[in-house]
Amino acid sequence: MRLSRFFLPILKENPKEAEIVSHRLMLRAGMIRQQSAGIYSWLPLGKRVLEKVNDIIRDEQNRAGAIEILMPTIQSAELWQESGRYDDYGREMLRIADRQERPMLYGPTNEEMVTDIFRSYVRSYKDLPLNLYHIQLKFRDEIRPRFGTMRSREFLMKDAYSFDIDQDAARHAYNKMFVAYLRTFARMGISVVPMRADTGPIGGDLSHEFIILADTGESEVFCHRDYLDFEVPGADTDFDDVAGLQGIVDKWTSLYAATSEMHDEKEFARVEDGARLSARGIEVGHIFYFGTKYSEPMGAKVMGPDGKEHPVHMGSYGIGPTRVVPAIIEASHDDAGIIWPESVAPFDLSIINMKAGDEACDGAGDTLYDALTGAGRDVLYDDRDERAGAKFATADLIGVPWQIVVGPRSIANGEVEVKNRRTGGRENLTVEAAINRFSSGDDQG
Amino acid sequence: MRLSRFFLPILKENPKEAEIVSHRLMLRAGMIRQQSAGIYSWLPLGKRVLEKVNDIIRDEQNRAGAIEILMPTIQSAELWQESGRYDDYGREMLRIADRQERPMLYGPTNEEMVTDIFRSYVRSYKDLPLNLYHIQLKFRDEIRPRFGTMRSREFLMKDAYSFDIDQDAARHAYNKMFVAYLRTFARMGISVVPMRADTGPIGGDLSHEFIILADTGESEVFCHRDYLDFEVPGADTDFDDVAGLQGIVDKWTSLYAATSEMHDEKEFARVEDGARLSARGIEVGHIFYFGTKYSEPMGAKVMGPDGKEHPVHMGSYGIGPTRVVPAIIEASHDDAGIIWPESVAPFDLSIINMKAGDEACDGAGDTLYDALTGAGRDVLYDDRDERAGAKFATADLIGVPWQIVVGPRSIANGEVEVKNRRTGGRENLTVEAAINRFSSGDDQG
Repeated sequence: MRLSRFFLPILKENPKEAEIVSHRLMLRAGMIRQQSAGIYSWLPLGKRVLEKVNDIIRDEQNRAGAIEILMPTIQSAELWQESGRYDDYGREMLRIADRQERPMLYGPTNEEMVTDIFRSYVRSYKDLPLNLYHIQLKFRDEIRPRFGTMRSREFLMKDAYSFDIDQDAARHAYNKMFVAYLRTFARMGISVVPMRADTGPIGGDLSHEFIILADTGESEVFCHRDYLDFEVPGADTDFDDVAGLQGIVDKWTSLYAATSEMHDEKEFARVEDGARLSARGIEVGHIFYFGTKYSEPMGAKVMGPDGKEHPVHMGSYGIGPTRVVPAIIEASHDDAGIIWPESVAPFDLSIINMKAGDEACDGAGDTLYDALTGAGRDVLYDDRDERAGAKFATADLIGVPWQIVVGPRSIANGEVEVKNRRTGGRENLTVEAAINRFSSGDDQG
Repeated sequence: MRLSRFFLPILKENPKEAEIVSHRLMLRAGMIRQQSAGIYSWLPLGKRVLEKVNDIIRDEQNRAGAIEILMPTIQSAELWQESGRYDDYGREMLRIADRQERPMLYGPTNEEMVTDIFRSYVRSYKDLPLNLYHIQLKFRDEIRPRFGTMRSREFLMKDAYSFDIDQDAARHAYNKMFVAYLRTFARMGISVVPMRADTGPIGGDLSHEFIILADTGESEVFCHRDYLDFEVPGADTDFDDVAGLQGIVDKWTSLYAATSEMHDEKEFARVEDGARLSARGIEVGHIFYFGTKYSEPMGAKVMGPDGKEHPVHMGSYGIGPTRVVPAIIEASHDDAGIIWPESVAPFDLSIINMKAGDEACDGAGDTLYDALTGAGRDVLYDDRDERAGAKFATADLIGVPWQIVVGPRSIANGEVEVKNRRTGGRENLTVEAAINRFSSGDDQG
């Protein structure tokens, strides 16, 4: 993408309304724009990151055997009256009357609707296990939306729902999502620790939150330091191996880890000295097992091998992509701007033409751009007629992992400068060597 | 995907509520489920087709230089008061009060919001041309939603918005989208004819609808038969070539073509005998140039080369993916079910194991499945313990382009039967030959 043809509305001033660094950087880098309180547009740079996050989530959900659907945003109140949550949910639920005066609502979550889908089609335990997910907008009318897309009213959520014949099978379904979440966040380049969590108004008796540790996190968390060095399960993990998955989950829940709601000072004190980590964290995922909480009142039953009807055991599993994006920024930035992990970066690399209009610079810039886009890399080419300093500042702010700087002096020697955004490391390479280095996709070279 | 692990809730009976064939087939093939009047869930098979349609749309929008964003569904009423459309829009607009009693609405379209984004950031003609699009849910509270997702209340729309300094530049932006639409629908395997259209409540003075001809189409259309043989612009089309694009648009608007609203009997009578085609059609795209209709009242102005401020000239360009899917089915089905064009098919091919549990059949089925998924093909493997007849009926109903049938008799000779869903043509191949044929992605063999 040539920057001269892209839409990247960088803000020079620090926006006053932004209280946390991710919100400030997302506004400054032209990733988002507030349209109303707690309601945002995703501008082109932000949209690219959001899609990379969605793609990783989708890939790992599919790997774990979950199947993608798309439920609508507008739901009928009747469904929620069946589960008993219509009155309970309170003012966070955006309630709507349509032109026929039917009571509707903008879904804050989808347990009721997915249970309705299930009961409409599935009759036998032979069709289980089943896990259906979607990546869809939700609306929760928070009284005080804040922190940009970290706590917005309209937000994107990946929500998966598992259906099983009994508690043992449901535990396996839960473990699949637990492991999928470990892999999902690791692929995004962030460390998460699963923590025992309160099940809250959603109910149920087995629940973990997945927490990113970041100094600017919204809540206090407590865990054993060793979690940070645990190895994440590989892509070859067999999700059908019941004992194997249980072993992974047992390991990842063997040491102390709890959010402030679930924190137990006495138990934490028993963790050995030097291993007690109290930090700030951001919740990026939440998984629940809630048994027959919805299947009982809504009549979602299947015939079991015993020839009798059983209400299905369910779990739900959420990740908020529009929240994950700022959470990654909280965990990965410096004074100059964002530092994207490579897997979620909006572009793989930036080419900075220091002197647009100069024949040698334009020639080398075009050569690099054509070769690298031809090799399938996502390249942002700063070909604008702008000061070099402004271009460097923009590249640092938007945080693309690699910068290739084409300047008149070095290009006279046939060389460009390659800078790593995270380390600040710089190196001179010939144009050809730079093309070879970055064509392969193996950027660590 | 093994069908035993997929969620494909086929209906055996013809659903009574479905008045048109696409609605009937989408329900029977388990693609969609109605949740409320005019509000649908997309089940796994439907979701796969919807994403293939979205991907083609996105690819061609990007090729034409449009840039993807994501605007929210919930908008503030204030924006619509600025343009004057808040009161005009009537009861199709789903109006909402949030917990602070602020008047909000579920966006039926996004002219106001995108104009607001534009005016917030863009100041100079040097930043033009600009075309921003998103693929986002819309809600229109139709009094009589019907025909499944063909005319639903909550629906997906790709809407693009162009911004230009003057009418000439805006005409070029319009032509880019015109050509992008020709390519988009051609890639979906359907023939469309662009027809002069009424601009309706959206305003403006240049507008075309893109119409699929289908016997079951909702409206009467009239055109010159030669349109059906026109060659669609290639992938190498230069979208910056102003005269070249105008030439393409001139050609595709040179002959008579009009929807019933714009039909002129006298003019149509002058078309030569044998070339007059009156048919039924389905609108799948609609493009508008509407000048300064929104930029004037909303103050979206840029500094021109003359040093003066000019309100920008705008156009909008819509495709409804949730409408395109049934429209393709209307144009491509038979008595047995759907016949997907390859580019939008939910899977590239089906493997039908006629006798699950038989060692030779299972072995050959697994070999084919592993080899073809390994080659990157989307394969649906019917490995269920079901009658062969039911499996054939399912495969025909869901309309995957190729079926590879593994039966005990032919596999004894090391052979499988390959069936083309569209032509019904059958051919025996060795397992190895079938793998070679379909590994390449060149299915036409």
